[in-house]
Amino acid sequence: VIRKNVREIQLSIRKISEKASEKEDCVRLDIGQPSFDTPQHVKEAARNFLDEKQGYTSTTGIQKLREKIAEEESMKSGVDVRPEEVMVTTGGMEAIFALFSSRLDEDDTLLVNDPSWGPYRLISAVNGNGVEQTQYFHNGELTEDVKEKAEKADMIAINSPSNPEGRVLSRDESRAIAELAEDKNCFLMTDEVYWRLTFDEEHQSPAAFNDNSALIGSVSKNHAMTGWRIGWIVDDSENIKEYAKVSRAMTAAPNKIGQLAAFEALDNSFHVGKMRDEYRKRRDYVVEQMKELGWGFTDPEGAIYAFPEVGKDSWEFAMEMIDEGVAVVPGEPFGSESDRSVRIAYGAAEMEELEKGFERLKKAV
Amino acid sequence: VIRKNVREIQLSIRKISEKASEKEDCVRLDIGQPSFDTPQHVKEAARNFLDEKQGYTSTTGIQKLREKIAEEESMKSGVDVRPEEVMVTTGGMEAIFALFSSRLDEDDTLLVNDPSWGPYRLISAVNGNGVEQTQYFHNGELTEDVKEKAEKADMIAINSPSNPEGRVLSRDESRAIAELAEDKNCFLMTDEVYWRLTFDEEHQSPAAFNDNSALIGSVSKNHAMTGWRIGWIVDDSENIKEYAKVSRAMTAAPNKIGQLAAFEALDNSFHVGKMRDEYRKRRDYVVEQMKELGWGFTDPEGAIYAFPEVGKDSWEFAMEMIDEGVAVVPGEPFGSESDRSVRIAYGAAEMEELEKGFERLKKAV
Repeated sequence: VIRKNVREIQLSIRKISEKASEKEDCVRLDIGQPSFDTPQHVKEAARNFLDEKQGYTSTTGIQKLREKIAEEESMKSGVDVRPEEVMVTTGGMEAIFALFSSRLDEDDTLLVNDPSWGPYRLISAVNGNGVEQTQYFHNGELTEDVKEKAEKADMIAINSPSNPEGRVLSRDESRAIAELAEDKNCFLMTDEVYWRLTFDEEHQSPAAFNDNSALIGSVSKNHAMTGWRIGWIVDDSENIKEYAKVSRAMTAAPNKIGQLAAFEALDNSFHVGKMRDEYRKRRDYVVEQMKELGWGFTDPEGAIYAFPEVGKDSWEFAMEMIDEGVAVVPGEPFGSESDRSVRIAYGAAEMEELEKGFERLKKAV
Repeated sequence: VIRKNVREIQLSIRKISEKASEKEDCVRLDIGQPSFDTPQHVKEAARNFLDEKQGYTSTTGIQKLREKIAEEESMKSGVDVRPEEVMVTTGGMEAIFALFSSRLDEDDTLLVNDPSWGPYRLISAVNGNGVEQTQYFHNGELTEDVKEKAEKADMIAINSPSNPEGRVLSRDESRAIAELAEDKNCFLMTDEVYWRLTFDEEHQSPAAFNDNSALIGSVSKNHAMTGWRIGWIVDDSENIKEYAKVSRAMTAAPNKIGQLAAFEALDNSFHVGKMRDEYRKRRDYVVEQMKELGWGFTDPEGAIYAFPEVGKDSWEFAMEMIDEGVAVVPGEPFGSESDRSVRIAYGAAEMEELEKGFERLKKAV
């Protein structure tokens, strides 16, 4: 018998990708991954690293990759991170799953932003912990509701740059959410898998202002390496040992050649600037188009998404648009106030495709 | 706060590998992986497959790999397996974790053989389900205890060829355990990750005799591909959809290049015969040596392990032997009757190393 909490999970967004893949000539703005392929120098390094014996690595990952990640995270957060405070995982997903599974019991509650990335709720459903959702910020200030809900929460998830809105926390906002978590004695998970992809302001890690937090990273989006499934979690070494027990049970260890490829990507990351410039161009174009369409939206300042309100039911809109030859993701699964919004993954389509997509959207609306 | 069931997990065997890696000139018979590297033609295929875009695959895996696995599993079990009845996973570990997480609640009990592979209990500890352990067979017949314990169990795990004993179920035994599970209305998990590595009789899948079962497979041991982290689960397509929800939450999808390499290994598996012949030679040597040492043991008929009784406390013996320059794993964590046995992973060491190891064992005993 399948457990109730698994049985009841609906992977509703799949309806979109299934319908879109059946439609001939459909511009795919629904897929949450870069249009770029993994950089050539990373692939070339992987080809060479294949000379090594492809056996198990330790559960926490290859030492030189842990060192490289520690270096990057120290630089990013301004807090000294040591290699033993890093565990490499099978994508950011495994890192988040291991964290929830290590810390959140059935009676515990995770607080997530409204709107936020679906898998926080998916992982919670599998793990069996509760989830509360509320808008964290309004005009740069914490909302009253987040302060109230944090009182009862056991963990707060923050994601900047964010999926689906492409929102980037300011330094003040980062500090505010980090301090709220500390005040309310909540553990803080700061998911920074898009941190390299900011277009206006620099990324500021909330982890810099909070000692009771874990940071999630990944090469998937920042380095166009989604297929390699390499992410990580950063926390005190004692906590890492606990997460490693769960990770040991989940996957034994991350893929070795993926770890070596990730090392090369972090060691020689000159490719990131070019990708970011291209995403920025697309972002500028998308903002201009959304304005022309008269859609309201939160400024997309990072990641690879925009999340406009389209003025009608998000599922209806998304299904109709596939018939018009452009796929976007309905906002409804992302949050309680998002049932008239859609997510546009401009990172997934090259400029020409993106233009074709917006021509179709404009014609249809 | 770390959850109690995670906090209480002891990865005790790590003490052995830690001590062994500090000892200079130590023969490593503790490591559960092949001495062979991934076959060259598989690596070469992976190098070529790197030309493809390295993006996400679907959670259930690349279609052509699912087809290839379905072909292999149909051939092996004699039951027609279709591609939609296969989910590719991040190693056999993820397959087992997803299965337990999908099916075993807190009040549910998994029944495992005594002795058996530790991760069944590790995964259960993370997942929160109960575990019962008993010896399944005695002189080729089901024991009274397994019949009794199956009454209250929700899932029965069977592993053939087995870790740690290297035991291979006969056709009659396979049928008996499969029918017991059906009689008692227990779900059956049949873990066959060593199925290619039998030295006397052919492997017989219990899944052939049971409709309410899931089969676990992997390229890790059969194809010397532990570092690639590619395994799978086979079950009815409706169940696969449920497991895929959990796998989606755990890792999103398996590593792409690993899947493509696994395809090559299954498509051109001429390398397996040579490895098996070499393992058989080592097995014959180990059996002879264990006899000379006067140790009792179950006949190792498959996998890459032997599990002799050494006549003293298994932890004491294992720790002492590292000082003598040979590492084996204490039996105690594997089962309730195994605290005077040790696991010898002869698959992990080439013949010359193995001989050196046994010289040291004989000198010390």
